[in-house]
Amino acid sequence: MTFSTPAPIVVAGQPAASSACPVVPAKGARRGVGIRDVSWSPQGFWGRRQRVNAQATIAHCESWMERLGWLENFDRVARGAETTERAGWQFSDSEVYKMLEGIAWELGRADDAELRARYEALVARVAAAQDDDGYLSTAFGHPGLPPRYSDMSMGHELYNVGHLLQAAVARLRTGHDDLLVAVARRAADHVCREFGPGSRESLCGHPEIEVGLAELSRATGEQRYLEQARIFLDRRGHGVLPVRPLLSAEYFQDDTPIREATAFRGHAVRALYLASGAVDVAVDSEDAELLGTLEAQWARTVERRTYLTGGMGSRHQDEGFGEDWELPPDRAYCETCAGVASTMLAWRLLLATGDPRYADLMERTLYNVVAAAPDEDGTAFFYANPLHVRVAGGEYSGGGVNHRAEGGVRAPWFDVSCCPTNVARTFASLHTYSAYAEGDVVSLVLYEAGEWNIAVDGGRLGFHVETRYPDDGTVRVVIDEAPPTGAGLRLRIPSWSRGAVAAGPRGEATPEPGWWDAGAVSVGDVVTLSLDVAPRLTWPDRRIDAMRGTVAVERGPLVLCLESTDLPEGASFEDASILASEPVLAEADGASVTLRLGDGTVASGGLPAYGSAPSVAATTTTAQVPLVPYHRWGERLPSQMRVMLPVAGQNS
Amino acid sequence: MTFSTPAPIVVAGQPAASSACPVVPAKGARRGVGIRDVSWSPQGFWGRRQRVNAQATIAHCESWMERLGWLENFDRVARGAETTERAGWQFSDSEVYKMLEGIAWELGRADDAELRARYEALVARVAAAQDDDGYLSTAFGHPGLPPRYSDMSMGHELYNVGHLLQAAVARLRTGHDDLLVAVARRAADHVCREFGPGSRESLCGHPEIEVGLAELSRATGEQRYLEQARIFLDRRGHGVLPVRPLLSAEYFQDDTPIREATAFRGHAVRALYLASGAVDVAVDSEDAELLGTLEAQWARTVERRTYLTGGMGSRHQDEGFGEDWELPPDRAYCETCAGVASTMLAWRLLLATGDPRYADLMERTLYNVVAAAPDEDGTAFFYANPLHVRVAGGEYSGGGVNHRAEGGVRAPWFDVSCCPTNVARTFASLHTYSAYAEGDVVSLVLYEAGEWNIAVDGGRLGFHVETRYPDDGTVRVVIDEAPPTGAGLRLRIPSWSRGAVAAGPRGEATPEPGWWDAGAVSVGDVVTLSLDVAPRLTWPDRRIDAMRGTVAVERGPLVLCLESTDLPEGASFEDASILASEPVLAEADGASVTLRLGDGTVASGGLPAYGSAPSVAATTTTAQVPLVPYHRWGERLPSQMRVMLPVAGQNS
Repeated sequence: MTFSTPAPIVVAGQPAASSACPVVPAKGARRGVGIRDVSWSPQGFWGRRQRVNAQATIAHCESWMERLGWLENFDRVARGAETTERAGWQFSDSEVYKMLEGIAWELGRADDAELRARYEALVARVAAAQDDDGYLSTAFGHPGLPPRYSDMSMGHELYNVGHLLQAAVARLRTGHDDLLVAVARRAADHVCREFGPGSRESLCGHPEIEVGLAELSRATGEQRYLEQARIFLDRRGHGVLPVRPLLSAEYFQDDTPIREATAFRGHAVRALYLASGAVDVAVDSEDAELLGTLEAQWARTVERRTYLTGGMGSRHQDEGFGEDWELPPDRAYCETCAGVASTMLAWRLLLATGDPRYADLMERTLYNVVAAAPDEDGTAFFYANPLHVRVAGGEYSGGGVNHRAEGGVRAPWFDVSCCPTNVARTFASLHTYSAYAEGDVVSLVLYEAGEWNIAVDGGRLGFHVETRYPDDGTVRVVIDEAPPTGAGLRLRIPSWSRGAVAAGPRGEATPEPGWWDAGAVSVGDVVTLSLDVAPRLTWPDRRIDAMRGTVAVERGPLVLCLESTDLPEGASFEDASILASEPVLAEADGASVTLRLGDGTVASGGLPAYGSAPSVAATTTTAQVPLVPYHRWGERLPSQMRVMLPVAGQNS
Repeated sequence: MTFSTPAPIVVAGQPAASSACPVVPAKGARRGVGIRDVSWSPQGFWGRRQRVNAQATIAHCESWMERLGWLENFDRVARGAETTERAGWQFSDSEVYKMLEGIAWELGRADDAELRARYEALVARVAAAQDDDGYLSTAFGHPGLPPRYSDMSMGHELYNVGHLLQAAVARLRTGHDDLLVAVARRAADHVCREFGPGSRESLCGHPEIEVGLAELSRATGEQRYLEQARIFLDRRGHGVLPVRPLLSAEYFQDDTPIREATAFRGHAVRALYLASGAVDVAVDSEDAELLGTLEAQWARTVERRTYLTGGMGSRHQDEGFGEDWELPPDRAYCETCAGVASTMLAWRLLLATGDPRYADLMERTLYNVVAAAPDEDGTAFFYANPLHVRVAGGEYSGGGVNHRAEGGVRAPWFDVSCCPTNVARTFASLHTYSAYAEGDVVSLVLYEAGEWNIAVDGGRLGFHVETRYPDDGTVRVVIDEAPPTGAGLRLRIPSWSRGAVAAGPRGEATPEPGWWDAGAVSVGDVVTLSLDVAPRLTWPDRRIDAMRGTVAVERGPLVLCLESTDLPEGASFEDASILASEPVLAEADGASVTLRLGDGTVASGGLPAYGSAPSVAATTTTAQVPLVPYHRWGERLPSQMRVMLPVAGQNS
């Protein structure tokens, strides 16, 4: 294998290893890897998705936003024209910024004249809409629009700016202090003036400005931005936001101060963006207490409010977290953006602590939520990612409108279209989450075929990885470069691993889940890891009521699912249950299981359908039926689908 | 027992038996009983609630609406003053009308000078706000408000008028052709002009005008109103309503014509009000095909989209029906108003067909949804009626706002406060649903201590009922009056009944569920029925995924539930499961069961909480634990609650 490994980008004052990536803590020893420090094979699981993202998704997003007038919104404001009917929701500006962030990472990986020209044209249109005092919004504060900051609960003005700052950070960290960066600095300065101490004692209903300010502070060295992020964090949770009909303070995380909360709650994306910004503030201000409470909130949430896929947000209502153990497979919201936000948060906690459980959740979420959203072509997306779909092809009749793309048919765009651009910026920078350096040791987090070349104490550690992970559990790491003073390598053993075998310069080992230390490595060393990705049964906690009497099948990091497409003709999807004592067989990237099948003809007889004896299906047959990776569901015919398989003989 | 049985009200042109009640089909042989034809003991299950309703609930509603400015809205419009900030939602007028309907039924039962004065004052305020052309709204069409009919999807203008018409019908049928009736006629005439053939080809996003027009047509003899109801029905389902962000045509039942639909879907109250109006139109126009499709939609909905309580509407999102078998106990919305609407519909279908399954669902819904909403004092209410509550005392922190009162604490009022007034008007007229006459035969539907005196062919059938139903299954009917030509009596044997014993002039019988014909009865005859109300296990259909591995306990018509308050100290509510092979014991109005208890200490160990083996609680003990009627839940301490009990040994 040969991948070009371009020279690393070095920004003054930043350690080289970590400079060109979305998250660069100002304190602490762990650093992610830069955008040009890793190059993944375009045939690998993620490499292929990155290629499709670069070649199709970003242009797809731009084309939709141009067509819908979300870009024209900027032009109209720039012209000073009266807005009569504005296209898009009040947060549509953020989609433009998320797309710009994605483009910035793409340009950071490899310059491309055509993409750069598009980027510059877009930035020029954005910049033209900025007011002299730094205020930037196409939904407020201009002729025909409501006044600035007249709807802090739902206006999303600071949320939009937060995404602008993240885009500017991507640009700065890839070596360009350009117009977008200038716009972002002016916007951030404006926010600090308007919402600093003694000014407006308010905050934005949708967190995001916090994480944007924190990273801009890191990228520019401006402590004021970090301080403003801290102010927003501490101001929240005291019922500051005006009450909105049918929305609770919990929805906005304005019910309880972040230092006192015990779990993530309310709107899932809001909660996870907020926590991400809070980790940034905790780390940079060395606030161990804040970090500790965030770790505890994360642990309770992941234990009790998270799906097997890593999906978060059980409720369609308020797009929100449920109570502990409220995890219905069928109406699981599991918004794609919540998967992105959970990845942002887990990565920050991993850098802050080195605890491999954060990497475990990140991998689980990436393979089973984020990867599930886009189709093969990168031009249609799931918004919600439920674990059970009863009606093939979607719940909504009535043409064209697809609210959530939850029925198994991915949609090219949405009315609220936060997910496509979030996938775009995440895939564009995904390889920066693949490893981190700490001193002279590199810890490898994600397994993917490709090349890494990472700055460590004393020089650079370069290696390439050969693997077909996750289809196969064999990972081979070949050391290509090491500092004269030596370097260490650690490999992640996922939490699901049983019976892993590893080998390195220090000999063989059978590592348990966690970090396996391969020891000091030198050029030419080969480190191998063999993970057992045979399919396995996974049982839900007994307290997850909606999953009682069911079991899932996983295969390595992949959650599998049953699609009705794969059932024998005449078998009722509702009456299919798994014979859990029969072996689960490996198949390509999936598995096959023995199902008991019924024809769905036996009714309960009751109105409503409850009877005096357990309800039993008319068993017609058993059959060996394939399961496919959840991330691939809905790619064939519209289909019914379920992750949690009813166990035969359990009250059925 | 002695109850005063006032003389029946007779309105010209209406058969006496059915004149003074909410539903009086223009065609068909079955007629409900009039508001003064039945008098229930104030100690009975329903009699007590009627008394509380009359003495407390109605005044409670009036006081809240005065305090919140929902009544002042009418005064401001009457004054012609500019509305700057309007109190309440656009449908707040309807709460006033529903309260007026409740008052009208109360005044129809027994005149009361103080209540009559309050009624007249309220009607005067409403009447003063009506425009010369009959238009009546405090939310549109006046200075400072949006123009008339500028938001057909969510404006609720015709919905409000529908409730006005129902209130006027109550007044007309209780013998008063008064100012409210005049206002209603003018409003109905206006609607016919504005939305008739060749005029606005539109309809209201929230059905209700249909049922209001149909009953006003029946009460006044004006065929135009029935015709307009039919026009609205047939116009719907063709995507007529403007699309609203995040709401589908299905939400409004505007996705599929009512004659082509196969189940109730979308917003539950909307769907059920619409179907009620459709039954009225089908019956009065002798449209057997329309009635047939409504019966089929009802049957599928009740089989597959209805809770054991009779509750309808599985989803918080859109307050809507779910797909078939989507019946999560924990997030069951089961809005109180959907229970009222389902009762309206079931009663209409019962009158149209005589099929006892409609009476079964009506009784189930009344005891387990409608009766559950108000507290003992009739001044606090549940809005949602879930079958499982994990967190005692409600989900929302942050004071004062109680959106849905779903956490086990009833609320005195709501932001969207449709339920209290719906309960008020339903309880005020509930006894009219207790029996129906057909020729010279009376069919007794609801068992309650009290007196009935019903017009039948040839004269009147009078009887009194002695019973402690539903606590006890014994019902004794004593015939007090019969026409010289004789009359027949039928008793309803509920669908859950096993081993009932009945006795009458023709001897003893062991009737199966359905109608038991006691035969011809004479003065002095005693008819007895003994229903077995011993508690029993009830199993959900295997296809209700969220109830897999659980069983419920019922007792007569009552669904029972477990409250955490009743668990031994130290027992975890989440770890309590029922030993389903142990006997279920009767206790007062509830039952007791043997539970396996755990202390909740065993964690799954996984993050998220899924493991390689079934999750098992640390069993500490078993205990006999009481279950209480669902309608009484939350009356003691704030408590966790569940109707569906996990079955011990089922994957746990």
